[in-house]
Amino acid sequence: MDVTATITTMATEARKAARTLAIMSTERKNEALAAMARAIVDRKSEIQAENQKDIAAAEQAGLTAAFIDRLTLSDKVVEAMVEGLEDVIGLPDPVGEVGRMWKRPNGLQVGRVRIPLGVIGFIYESRPNVTIDAAGLCLKSGNAIILKGGSEAINSNLALSRVIADALDAAGAPGAAVQVVPTTERQATTVLLEQEELIDLIIPRGGEGLIRFVVQNSRIPVLKHYKGVCHVYVDAGADPAMAENICFNAKVQRPGVCNAMETMLVHHDAADDFLPAMLAKFEEAGVEIRGCPETLRRFPGAQAATEADWPAEYEDLILAVKVVDSMDEALDHIAAHGSNHTETIVTRDYERARRFLNAADSSVVLVNASTRFNDGGQLGLGAEIGISTSKLHAFGPMGLEELTTRKFIVFGDGQIRT
Amino acid sequence: MDVTATITTMATEARKAARTLAIMSTERKNEALAAMARAIVDRKSEIQAENQKDIAAAEQAGLTAAFIDRLTLSDKVVEAMVEGLEDVIGLPDPVGEVGRMWKRPNGLQVGRVRIPLGVIGFIYESRPNVTIDAAGLCLKSGNAIILKGGSEAINSNLALSRVIADALDAAGAPGAAVQVVPTTERQATTVLLEQEELIDLIIPRGGEGLIRFVVQNSRIPVLKHYKGVCHVYVDAGADPAMAENICFNAKVQRPGVCNAMETMLVHHDAADDFLPAMLAKFEEAGVEIRGCPETLRRFPGAQAATEADWPAEYEDLILAVKVVDSMDEALDHIAAHGSNHTETIVTRDYERARRFLNAADSSVVLVNASTRFNDGGQLGLGAEIGISTSKLHAFGPMGLEELTTRKFIVFGDGQIRT
Repeated sequence: MDVTATITTMATEARKAARTLAIMSTERKNEALAAMARAIVDRKSEIQAENQKDIAAAEQAGLTAAFIDRLTLSDKVVEAMVEGLEDVIGLPDPVGEVGRMWKRPNGLQVGRVRIPLGVIGFIYESRPNVTIDAAGLCLKSGNAIILKGGSEAINSNLALSRVIADALDAAGAPGAAVQVVPTTERQATTVLLEQEELIDLIIPRGGEGLIRFVVQNSRIPVLKHYKGVCHVYVDAGADPAMAENICFNAKVQRPGVCNAMETMLVHHDAADDFLPAMLAKFEEAGVEIRGCPETLRRFPGAQAATEADWPAEYEDLILAVKVVDSMDEALDHIAAHGSNHTETIVTRDYERARRFLNAADSSVVLVNASTRFNDGGQLGLGAEIGISTSKLHAFGPMGLEELTTRKFIVFGDGQIRT
Repeated sequence: MDVTATITTMATEARKAARTLAIMSTERKNEALAAMARAIVDRKSEIQAENQKDIAAAEQAGLTAAFIDRLTLSDKVVEAMVEGLEDVIGLPDPVGEVGRMWKRPNGLQVGRVRIPLGVIGFIYESRPNVTIDAAGLCLKSGNAIILKGGSEAINSNLALSRVIADALDAAGAPGAAVQVVPTTERQATTVLLEQEELIDLIIPRGGEGLIRFVVQNSRIPVLKHYKGVCHVYVDAGADPAMAENICFNAKVQRPGVCNAMETMLVHHDAADDFLPAMLAKFEEAGVEIRGCPETLRRFPGAQAATEADWPAEYEDLILAVKVVDSMDEALDHIAAHGSNHTETIVTRDYERARRFLNAADSSVVLVNASTRFNDGGQLGLGAEIGISTSKLHAFGPMGLEELTTRKFIVFGDGQIRT
């Protein structure tokens, strides 16, 4: 296969499809999504048979059980894929929305209308169900999508791609609206990242290595999320029960995800009352504690934290703990070691709640709630295609609106510039 | 000078300043802007003396009169710089704005608040007055800015930088909020483009060569504008007087700018009545016509257009003209040769006006008005730092709001995720 020619043709076809998708009615887009959902149900056994090939190869390669679990399109996962598409059908279509219009002194009426971004390149690892999630969100928002999945999921992704193509065809939507790159060669990614005339946005999802590779090789704008080093700051005078509840949830409920707490910052005045019981509870739940000297003084069972712990994203039952003298010290720590992802303050103090909300430079900042709420569904966006920790275009969870942009429309009566 | 060390230090200082700027009140930012305006007035002779050095060097290097004109900080240009700052003081501050808040079923109250982007790298050519315009817009929107100007304006830019630094200092604002790169070496640009941990956005302003260099070497998101190949489509049945007025204004009023018309598309049914008089008027104004065969048939004095004319940005008194059989042909032509900048339809037809507005994939699409209105001031944004022809983050003129992003803020009462 000539990888360059294949990718260039795919991108050219995607651009053509994007012109059609941009002016397709919400009704017709929903029909295409419904056809996709039906086709997945109808052809589940075909999809699962191809998925079995990937699983067998992964077992042979000695990949971990956790990896194989993420790779598996079980009945439950297929059901969730279909439900995901049905949810997306139910979401409002952002395309065509005009927030307000205004009138210029010369009588021109000006507004900004939401339009799709165009063509999105989506580069991701392992989970083949993401193929359907991403395709559904892009289709609903009027974007064409080119998907480059991991080599371990290639058979699953190609099977899903065939099912989607047939469904789009049956619904009268352009087939090139959703395309899966048919090769596992890394060169395909590199060539994809060079199509700046044809592709409008790259979204990488996976480990930090993949994302750094994409950022360094892309001439196309990238929306990315390196890591989630999320903090909870327990303020002086915070309700100890609430603080314990929030911190425990933020660390333990699902430690392997990006919005789990990695470092707990505790005000000096709260430390004596709060830390011993909290850390005992963590230890009981199997959490390994790495503490600063002030933490160790109050909880001698903990390990001593090193400088490497403060910027660490463990994604595991490990927690760094630091006692701070003031909220400013907490904010400085977050600015120095955080990843602009999610920060929580637990407090009873009005002024400090306000100041923390303003000063913490992260995509989601919460007062008295778990960091685990940084999620498109939880925050009310309906669904998410990823979380951006860089500020351009979107900061935080990205739903349908973040897959659009706005152009200016101007209604005149013959106005010229003087 | 160790360029890498210099740039890295500047970016580090800018990032620190950005933390202060992000929470600075509108009042204090306006005071700093007013101090800048006053300092420019007070130290005009110092600024102009340094500017004279650049002018003398440009004359010695044999640069064109037009180039030297753009370089010159005349009394009038200095006055315009000061007025520009006063205008920015009068504009509303987008930072802190929360469009709406909503409530989740679990009681969480969620909203998105506008925040500055952080640190902006601004890379530009010749005109030193842009230094003040860009600094003013960034300061008002709470961003720190690092300016890398052209080598021909280095003395002027450094003089302005000293004046700004003293003004910021007097107003109690961080001096590193506005920094001018003190060297003309190209390596400084390359190093600047590698500071992805410290700089949030790069805005290049200048020729296509500069912009392509920036895009290819930047690891930081870039908001850019390659070129403006703007079209006016004169529909069948359009009011001929209105069409003539709009087309003439779009081409002739200021041919050297990006929102001037470069190609005029005329519906076949309008061509006989419209073209001869229109083209005669253009010719009288010194416009060189490059027409398709159908144009030449109606106006034999024109030159024959070649394929190279359709995507050309002349920025001069030259116009490509094509007769089309339908609006769809016009839209296909724009999709194939346009630059996503500005398109106008002149029409009396409701349905075609609506269809053109939807289908033309450009940052500003107008009905019955000149392309020359694609400008932040003209469209009511107050001021602009540039025009983006790519869709991420901003599409079209960028004002203060486009120099900000939004983070999520969440008010809870102890909510955890279950």
